[in-house]
Amino acid sequence: MADAPNGTLPVPPATAAKLTPAEKYQLVTQNLAEVLGGEQMKAILEERDLVAYWGTAPTGRPHLGYFVPLAKLADFLTASVEVKILLADVHAFLDNLKAPIELVEARVDYYRRLITAVFRSLNLPLDKVSFVVGSSYQYTAQYNLDKYKLTSITSEHDARKAGAEVVKQVSSPLLSGLLYPLLQALDEEYLGVDFQFGGVDQRKIFTYAEQYLPKIGYTKRSHLMNLMVPGLSGGKMSSSDPNSKIDFLDPPAVVKSKIQKAVCAPGEVEGNGVLAFIRHVVVPLGELFRGQGRASVRGWVGEGAPEDAVFTVSGNPKFGGEVQHFRTVDELEDAYAKGTVHPGDLKAACIAAINALLAPIQAEFNASAEFQEAERRAYPPEVKAVPAKKKEKKYTPKPEHLMTPEEKARQAEKDAAFAAKHQKAGGLTETEKMREAVVETLSQ
Amino acid sequence: MADAPNGTLPVPPATAAKLTPAEKYQLVTQNLAEVLGGEQMKAILEERDLVAYWGTAPTGRPHLGYFVPLAKLADFLTASVEVKILLADVHAFLDNLKAPIELVEARVDYYRRLITAVFRSLNLPLDKVSFVVGSSYQYTAQYNLDKYKLTSITSEHDARKAGAEVVKQVSSPLLSGLLYPLLQALDEEYLGVDFQFGGVDQRKIFTYAEQYLPKIGYTKRSHLMNLMVPGLSGGKMSSSDPNSKIDFLDPPAVVKSKIQKAVCAPGEVEGNGVLAFIRHVVVPLGELFRGQGRASVRGWVGEGAPEDAVFTVSGNPKFGGEVQHFRTVDELEDAYAKGTVHPGDLKAACIAAINALLAPIQAEFNASAEFQEAERRAYPPEVKAVPAKKKEKKYTPKPEHLMTPEEKARQAEKDAAFAAKHQKAGGLTETEKMREAVVETLSQ
Repeated sequence: MADAPNGTLPVPPATAAKLTPAEKYQLVTQNLAEVLGGEQMKAILEERDLVAYWGTAPTGRPHLGYFVPLAKLADFLTASVEVKILLADVHAFLDNLKAPIELVEARVDYYRRLITAVFRSLNLPLDKVSFVVGSSYQYTAQYNLDKYKLTSITSEHDARKAGAEVVKQVSSPLLSGLLYPLLQALDEEYLGVDFQFGGVDQRKIFTYAEQYLPKIGYTKRSHLMNLMVPGLSGGKMSSSDPNSKIDFLDPPAVVKSKIQKAVCAPGEVEGNGVLAFIRHVVVPLGELFRGQGRASVRGWVGEGAPEDAVFTVSGNPKFGGEVQHFRTVDELEDAYAKGTVHPGDLKAACIAAINALLAPIQAEFNASAEFQEAERRAYPPEVKAVPAKKKEKKYTPKPEHLMTPEEKARQAEKDAAFAAKHQKAGGLTETEKMREAVVETLSQ
Repeated sequence: MADAPNGTLPVPPATAAKLTPAEKYQLVTQNLAEVLGGEQMKAILEERDLVAYWGTAPTGRPHLGYFVPLAKLADFLTASVEVKILLADVHAFLDNLKAPIELVEARVDYYRRLITAVFRSLNLPLDKVSFVVGSSYQYTAQYNLDKYKLTSITSEHDARKAGAEVVKQVSSPLLSGLLYPLLQALDEEYLGVDFQFGGVDQRKIFTYAEQYLPKIGYTKRSHLMNLMVPGLSGGKMSSSDPNSKIDFLDPPAVVKSKIQKAVCAPGEVEGNGVLAFIRHVVVPLGELFRGQGRASVRGWVGEGAPEDAVFTVSGNPKFGGEVQHFRTVDELEDAYAKGTVHPGDLKAACIAAINALLAPIQAEFNASAEFQEAERRAYPPEVKAVPAKKKEKKYTPKPEHLMTPEEKARQAEKDAAFAAKHQKAGGLTETEKMREAVVETLSQ
């Protein structure tokens, strides 16, 4: 991978350097659905800058909804927050085997490359951003001891409640889903952060963490929640439903086809997937670009638009349509409700906006054989989500003292391979290993 | 600790050396409530000797009921079975905090000393017996990966069912109780055994293990179950109910008092705690001693008794009672049912038998300051079973890069101490560590 670009904050560097604690707090918490533990963050800001974590489980293909949290990170970075991105491979595995364990490693690699490419497309500075892979510390003795502690004070009922909105709900729930909230709580401690950032669908897991970490002697962390971006079909945007979302690698024709199928009834704003996407993704990213002094890359604001326009819809002149510039999403929605913006024109503008956002990411993908190979390994066309049941081995296990020297050598090789995979730094303490993992930054 | 004695098998060494696979199988499986997977054991015996594990969670004080499985181990050792005794410290912690984690380590030490003393009192050879502490491998990456795999295929319902008879059932069940059966299944693989031995109360956990280990690619193991010894008050003998059981360290006066309170209605055999104890503990141990050529140490068989007597009751001559020798427990029970054995006389004989069994163990305890200190640390009088809720720490966590050199040094010390405690052999692979733990034998 090429070195990460230095990037640009949405405010001038001199301004960023002089922000007061109150201004930083304002930046960090703006445009969110909810903030829990704000006072604690303010107190920390009086002493030092904040450390945050945003986690994602590498299961299905990342979709355009990821633009929302990744764009919000721009505020964090402007406020000098150190941002850790957890690639939660163990969570991915626990969540009802959405990702078979054999594929998770490949998906971690793909997610890391893809998220890095998205950051580059947003031209954000990456020196305070790092990736951490969950398994780099979630198999350590200390983590597991803490997990055992949590299991011994968490009732089945509370665990089920905490995971209700995030863990796939099935008729016969698996134990793995019950453990999910416990891991996510411990991650806050093990990543050493002051707050966790996620969608409002994480709220019950966040309140679980606030309630239970102090019970095992750890500090309660703050929690910041962004709004959920509705899917194009009106419901939740989901990695596992290809019709509800647009993939970062969808070519322009596929984007066009998906948007044309999106829910967008004439005059109806409520439940309109296209308007929701413009509100939650397109316009905020445009504001980021404008703050960076890159207003011109906003492909969705037409030429000749006023300085403060955020979106442009061009009606088809054949039907008497004209070019309309909007200064807020509210203005756009009002016009749509009144029928002065035609659904087909809105969709065309949205298609152009999405393709403009995807172009630099897809250009990076198309230029990198490694990136393409990573994608193929992460989502091989022939692999089903749930692996076939393994055939029971019928061998008679042999204790070590009965092994031949050759068998012992083979076993030692297997052991060493496993140890190398899961304990790359055998001579380090668990904490050192964790730190090693944490400093594995974007630029590497 | 003094070296373990060489001990004596209940058959002559020449006989033991010449046992056929069929004879070994017969010995291993005799006098049990149930055997699952016997054919698999027979197949292994055609190739080599068996490896077994018996586990105990070091929670409450070990009680006289432990004589039953430990005496059964005599059959295993006679049949050249390698026996691993799992001191399941992590299980102890998981089972509803019966043992606070801080005490578990002390209890592991006490259980090890106590069980060793019991083995010595039974004069069993210990060269094929080893202790393994659960945490020596239950915090490793590979074990936890396997545990995650099991949680991802085990439903809450199946986990609850598996633990129903062993895990304390409470109104709001904790997650820890659900994990208990998964750990016990994995232990079979990680201890590298052919069969697990336990009470019939373990049956559902055993069948869980048989069903689920093959699903993650491991061999299904066989399971041997002994009868449960009823408590003196008629119910299950339990470590946590001091009235239902006799402690190995109870002095003669306490033994007398407990037996005198035991359920022993005149003429009633059913639900009679004293008769049950004689049937399940006293007489089988007497048969072991006789097999070892030590018939004379059976304090419960009177002088002048016939060669094949197993129990003697001496009536009080004041009331016209006489000395009665019995050749089987059935004979004793028949006499009791007919009223020819008086409850008071039966109790007196049982008290004498128990004190005879306990005398060598208590002598070892009283002669060892270390053993006494181990007991005090394991069961300090002032410590409650459930620790008070920890007060929430209010400090602001500080990331490493903001630490002073002094703070870094302190943190490094803490990390090293933790690593030393949980990862004694830092440079070894997980499997090597496990093997190290396994070879920590009784004689050390």
